[in-house]
Amino acid sequence: MPDANSLTPVGQASRPFLAGIDVGGTNIKVGLVDNKGKTLAYYTFPTDVERGPDDGCRRMAEAVRRVTSDAKADLGDVVRIGLATPGTMDVPAGLLLEPHNLQGWWNYPIRDRLAEAAGIPVTFANDANAAAYGEFWVGSGQQYNSMILLTLGTGIGGGIIIGDKLIEGEHSCGGEVGHIIIDMSDDAMKDNAGKTGSLEAYASAGGVVKRAQAALAKDSSSVLAKIGLAEDELTPLAIAEAAEQGDLLARNVVLDTAKYLGIGITTLVHTIDPESVVLGGAMTFGGNDNALGREFLQAICDEFNRRTFPTLAGKIIIDFATLGGDAGYLGAAGLARLAHR
Amino acid sequence: MPDANSLTPVGQASRPFLAGIDVGGTNIKVGLVDNKGKTLAYYTFPTDVERGPDDGCRRMAEAVRRVTSDAKADLGDVVRIGLATPGTMDVPAGLLLEPHNLQGWWNYPIRDRLAEAAGIPVTFANDANAAAYGEFWVGSGQQYNSMILLTLGTGIGGGIIIGDKLIEGEHSCGGEVGHIIIDMSDDAMKDNAGKTGSLEAYASAGGVVKRAQAALAKDSSSVLAKIGLAEDELTPLAIAEAAEQGDLLARNVVLDTAKYLGIGITTLVHTIDPESVVLGGAMTFGGNDNALGREFLQAICDEFNRRTFPTLAGKIIIDFATLGGDAGYLGAAGLARLAHR
Repeated sequence: MPDANSLTPVGQASRPFLAGIDVGGTNIKVGLVDNKGKTLAYYTFPTDVERGPDDGCRRMAEAVRRVTSDAKADLGDVVRIGLATPGTMDVPAGLLLEPHNLQGWWNYPIRDRLAEAAGIPVTFANDANAAAYGEFWVGSGQQYNSMILLTLGTGIGGGIIIGDKLIEGEHSCGGEVGHIIIDMSDDAMKDNAGKTGSLEAYASAGGVVKRAQAALAKDSSSVLAKIGLAEDELTPLAIAEAAEQGDLLARNVVLDTAKYLGIGITTLVHTIDPESVVLGGAMTFGGNDNALGREFLQAICDEFNRRTFPTLAGKIIIDFATLGGDAGYLGAAGLARLAHR
Repeated sequence: MPDANSLTPVGQASRPFLAGIDVGGTNIKVGLVDNKGKTLAYYTFPTDVERGPDDGCRRMAEAVRRVTSDAKADLGDVVRIGLATPGTMDVPAGLLLEPHNLQGWWNYPIRDRLAEAAGIPVTFANDANAAAYGEFWVGSGQQYNSMILLTLGTGIGGGIIIGDKLIEGEHSCGGEVGHIIIDMSDDAMKDNAGKTGSLEAYASAGGVVKRAQAALAKDSSSVLAKIGLAEDELTPLAIAEAAEQGDLLARNVVLDTAKYLGIGITTLVHTIDPESVVLGGAMTFGGNDNALGREFLQAICDEFNRRTFPTLAGKIIIDFATLGGDAGYLGAAGLARLAHR
């Protein structure tokens, strides 16, 4: 959520305006964004999935009018809405397919229904791709020509931008960067979708916790073993705190996560050869503001530089994202802006 | 090399014309190509690397005039040359950097020198990327909007095309599809560049032979053991012939190659989500014309379909390339055509 003090007054904003909407399973975020990516007004409200998609579209349209009014802007200046949702989806058709966290909103023509409810044309995108475009447009990737985002959380999502163009893919599955395979062995770890050997299986929150559990089963000297955490208390945060206190097992879990990410990034860079790779999400161990986060990033860079071609070593900018949870609505607005131009 | 009977007479050709040049360590291939990708005339000559790059450019310019004359075309109709070379290279600068098989041609501004020698503007590309564009333009990928090529040979090269746009990358390293990592373990196989765990390490000609050697060390019942091949006689061709005779060890080597490719293709598809994946090069076990080739392809598809998302299983067209060794000069001509438009 943008700080109230960071909002741009409408008098200093650059027209046209876009509304960016990021639909999650719990909350919907709506921002009124100007042509340079500045937020004029922001509003968030519960998704209330059970109220159904028609009611959701009605409330989203209402929220667009609300942020426009809050910003003291004119609805006529809002030329387009950018709508980001979790998959699965058919982007060209404007269709939600079977998104796991929007039960009851399946096979729903959300793009056109929202456009009808709001009376404003809508650009539709995958939420992870929208977040990538947000970081590319006004976040950590803004000075680069091309960028890959990896969002580290419960899963690993992301997106790929090359020269202002989002790689959406032919079946709305472009940039599924958590689902590249880093371990082809038969006993590789499994990810949230039950697939073996993916980057997500190793480096998502679930992967981190599973690896910590496996290590604790063999080594009881860790503070994590001594404080006797119940299984559901062994979280990435608990592991990060132990690592910060110098616990060897916890540190190894964190640095192994960096190694797996460095391997995955090597694969992605050899495919795309982007100018920058950006790491977002909750699983960044505090990012640049924290010693552990900086050590984590350095270990990722080391693994990549060791594995890549000599010509690329040291040349790819790998850094943390800067927009946090705002990347989705900002990127959705940015994609709407591209579609409007 | 195009069959003489397949050449298009200049009277039936579509203007403007392009010259496509594919520079290899042994030979240089030059084709005069029309606006629809038809070859009007073709000429190949030894690279003679030791004669140096200036002499090379002079002979390439001469060859362009020769194919134009052979086709009874007018040099004024040849609007642009497409030049494909092996890397390393700096594409935007038009520079050869340190190509292993063009010793003495290093740090050479080949694009501009050829343009001077020929008096025709030149578009410069990586040879593997040019081959990918060739298959996309007039080969196996021609009915698709996006395509990934993997060229299976001594190494694994390739390229990625999305909507008529080649993914060249920011450092001329886009589409290095042989250098994605499929095995992160410390004892993974090594590729030609000494890097561990890459797709090339497992599925290139060298990888195939090394895996066969390792299998033969443990199992002497194979016909490959019985005929007592010297180490340098154990080639992919010998392995393919044994597999065709039903030799179990040889068949497993071939089908394991398919498995590794299926894993690598899963990673590439989850990154790009293309309409098609095309397999070219010498290591395709006879391709569609051969039972072993068809079995190899089916095993690749099976591995991919098993590992991908349900929404993508069965949806990605995976097939063999059709242009053979002509893909490079045709693709170079096609890229020149794009630059001219």
